[in-house]
Amino acid sequence: MKPVSRRKFVQQSALVVASASLPFPFAMSTNKEVFVHQVYFWLKDPNSAADRAALRAGLEKLRAIPVITFSHIGTAAPTRREVIDSSYDFSLLCFFKNGPDQDVYQTHPIHLEFVDSCKHLWQRVVVYDAIGEGQE
Amino acid sequence: MKPVSRRKFVQQSALVVASASLPFPFAMSTNKEVFVHQVYFWLKDPNSAADRAALRAGLEKLRAIPVITFSHIGTAAPTRREVIDSSYDFSLLCFFKNGPDQDVYQTHPIHLEFVDSCKHLWQRVVVYDAIGEGQE
Repeated sequence: MKPVSRRKFVQQSALVVASASLPFPFAMSTNKEVFVHQVYFWLKDPNSAADRAALRAGLEKLRAIPVITFSHIGTAAPTRREVIDSSYDFSLLCFFKNGPDQDVYQTHPIHLEFVDSCKHLWQRVVVYDAIGEGQE
Repeated sequence: MKPVSRRKFVQQSALVVASASLPFPFAMSTNKEVFVHQVYFWLKDPNSAADRAALRAGLEKLRAIPVITFSHIGTAAPTRREVIDSSYDFSLLCFFKNGPDQDVYQTHPIHLEFVDSCKHLWQRVVVYDAIGEGQE
């Protein structure tokens, strides 16, 4: 076994850290451009446990789309202030590297299948797309 | 200098990677609870470059609040579909570990100062708070 000097160890460790950080865009000290795609869903029948489960299952499947760098599937937090809209049933937040990657997502077969199989569940969808810099 | 065996190097590298990943909640293979706080701002005078700069500067200052684990300051992307609301002027996305951390943010002096010094700039604010799991 070849011994590794302390300097070499530190250098190699830094490389390991750098490569471990690569998949996620924010594991860096400077700001990083992120395309934020936020979707809110209002169900036709929010009291139907089956409909809620079906939409959640559909949203979970979307996560397999490779251009998504981060996703969050949520429901309204219990916060209540005048400015807060907590009337929605599900939220989906997706991060993309840039606009072209978001375009790929929109026409990805998994996304098209999601819309096809779940659109009967919702009465309203609102989307906010934002471009800007993310920071840890 | 004490030589480091390959096994030791691998073990230590794993430790370095683990500790390097700690500050960010998503540098892990499993899902992680995240409180997502999304805010959209409509300026009173969206054509005023001074007002835009003042609001952006205020938003940037918020990033110093320690309970924020990730933030994104954005403007509307050029995407245009029927379901997309692109009428806002600025978006602010903040991640918190949980609801109590978001409560800390709301009453943090930097946040109170932001509201005090910037509220004259906006005509409308909409907030969506969502709890759920984030995934890389």
